[in-house]
Amino acid sequence: MPDSLEQPLEQLPRYVQDILEQPPALRGLLTAGLGSAATTFLSQGLAGFDRIVITGMGASLYASYPSYLRLARAGLPVWLVETGELLHDVPELVTGRSLLWVASQSGESAEVQALLEQCVNPRPTVLGIVNNTDSALAQAADVVIELHAGEERAVSTRTYVNTLAASALAVRLALGEPESTDLFAAVGAVQRYLDDWRAHADAIGDAISTPDALVILARGASLAAAGTGALIIKEAAKYHAEALSTSQFRHGPLEMVAVGVTVVLLEGDRHTAPLGQRLADDIRRYGGRVVWLGQTVPDPDALSLAACRGAARHIAEILPLQLLSVVLAERAGIEPGVFRHLEKVTRVL
Amino acid sequence: MPDSLEQPLEQLPRYVQDILEQPPALRGLLTAGLGSAATTFLSQGLAGFDRIVITGMGASLYASYPSYLRLARAGLPVWLVETGELLHDVPELVTGRSLLWVASQSGESAEVQALLEQCVNPRPTVLGIVNNTDSALAQAADVVIELHAGEERAVSTRTYVNTLAASALAVRLALGEPESTDLFAAVGAVQRYLDDWRAHADAIGDAISTPDALVILARGASLAAAGTGALIIKEAAKYHAEALSTSQFRHGPLEMVAVGVTVVLLEGDRHTAPLGQRLADDIRRYGGRVVWLGQTVPDPDALSLAACRGAARHIAEILPLQLLSVVLAERAGIEPGVFRHLEKVTRVL
Repeated sequence: MPDSLEQPLEQLPRYVQDILEQPPALRGLLTAGLGSAATTFLSQGLAGFDRIVITGMGASLYASYPSYLRLARAGLPVWLVETGELLHDVPELVTGRSLLWVASQSGESAEVQALLEQCVNPRPTVLGIVNNTDSALAQAADVVIELHAGEERAVSTRTYVNTLAASALAVRLALGEPESTDLFAAVGAVQRYLDDWRAHADAIGDAISTPDALVILARGASLAAAGTGALIIKEAAKYHAEALSTSQFRHGPLEMVAVGVTVVLLEGDRHTAPLGQRLADDIRRYGGRVVWLGQTVPDPDALSLAACRGAARHIAEILPLQLLSVVLAERAGIEPGVFRHLEKVTRVL
Repeated sequence: MPDSLEQPLEQLPRYVQDILEQPPALRGLLTAGLGSAATTFLSQGLAGFDRIVITGMGASLYASYPSYLRLARAGLPVWLVETGELLHDVPELVTGRSLLWVASQSGESAEVQALLEQCVNPRPTVLGIVNNTDSALAQAADVVIELHAGEERAVSTRTYVNTLAASALAVRLALGEPESTDLFAAVGAVQRYLDDWRAHADAIGDAISTPDALVILARGASLAAAGTGALIIKEAAKYHAEALSTSQFRHGPLEMVAVGVTVVLLEGDRHTAPLGQRLADDIRRYGGRVVWLGQTVPDPDALSLAACRGAARHIAEILPLQLLSVVLAERAGIEPGVFRHLEKVTRVL
């Protein structure tokens, strides 16, 4: 495999190109901002709504988790519900005085379209976070935040990162928080990390070996990367990886650990990192392998993340998992990130 | 393997005994009822609370999902949050005017204990659904519902079924719904199903073969069985199975389907069963194997459930997955349901 510094971008698989184009896509969003309508709307705060129901499918759902936590921590009545469940099983969660906060990069997913058709009477206020501004979601929404992520081929990369960033900006506006440079600083940090993408890919590929079972664990806002990581490994490499919360893993799944089981453990917030360390020790004691993704805890099997802080840390967390999906596809002898069964937009319920 | 009708109960693995003792344990709960204090409390309804936050870990969390959906469908402001996340990442969800609804059969899980210590100021009203009435949860709760499930050895079986049933009864009382005989009728239906446990175990064991990847899919309230099924397969058979929502599976994970991938698909509610059928067809078309658990849809790979209706359907759904965990343990040459790493009560955060 030629070194990434020597191989022209256009000769790389398009999925790898998508991954490498994340820093300029993020810069594009940050330069454009959320737009004047969304900025005006969010600056008024969200206290006028009886409920804030955040919804999405796949990577869009996972990307919304940090924002859900921040709004809930601020005391707001906020839910995060998969659109399929919201549509089929609990539409009553959304009232006429609710804010329905929909993240969907295509804006055309089957569940999102059906939900918008269903939410007519009572009609909530709809905030759409969307890449395609011609989509059903963009048309139906009262307020639109555009992702400015460019066109993606299949697996969500730039749109995922920009959904994380756009929703973090939206939450800050809604909560009246001071501006931060964390996301702007992330453009450079992510670029520097991806300049060495081949070395980072090989490092995580070597670290996980070829496990019988691959599990990705996280807590809190880092669950966004765990969920998305497991998803894109299935999509891009056709390889089975499961995401679980670190707490839940101790409540039973730890029993499956033996030689052949690899756990990727995201360090996450400082206040829970020691609990993760204790679990990592237990996993190793039971014969399993641990790959620790973080940089403040001195773990023997740690791989460093891009040097991001604040909300941008969750961008840093997805990068090694993206690169892992590339390595696993290469090992399977397939081009990473090319769909064999699906189309880019899931139009079937 | 001797026929179950000929082998004395006490010669079976204790985990299998736990499974077979579910009908009398359920009868015990239904005979005892929820107790006068809980009945009085619930009969007043839950409108006096600004929030209802349902929480638990592992099987207790999954067992609460159908009740969360029913309360949400009735318009109540209800959340279902894993106790680890509630404790560490979003304690602000619980206010002084909230009902904190805690399901924990041991009542002593590390997260539950820490949460109870944390919820002091402001202090919510605490409803505890618990098997051990000497536990920290039973002591701290304002209202206690006892599970009457008897003592379990390791993997949750009787306590899971009784948590499903007790929370269904609690929801009915709180919503002022008419009494139903569905749970009483389930005692006999589950007994009849388990009288043939060996045949049912062999049938699902044959149907899944030995997959490279095993995924359990469901929607709505049937997600309780999917989540618990994947958990107990990891616990009792040390085998990797993942639970996912059927909708989410179509949004990406479907890409991993090939020869060697087996999907157990729970039929669930009538209104979404046709969507599951379409997915089953797609999975087969892509080379994967489908095991359909249900009885109203004429699927070529269907295994029938115990003949239960109403809330008891979610009891019927867990039984074949319990038996699958027994078969997978037998194939691995281990006694099913014996913990090698964990203790029954998870006392470590």
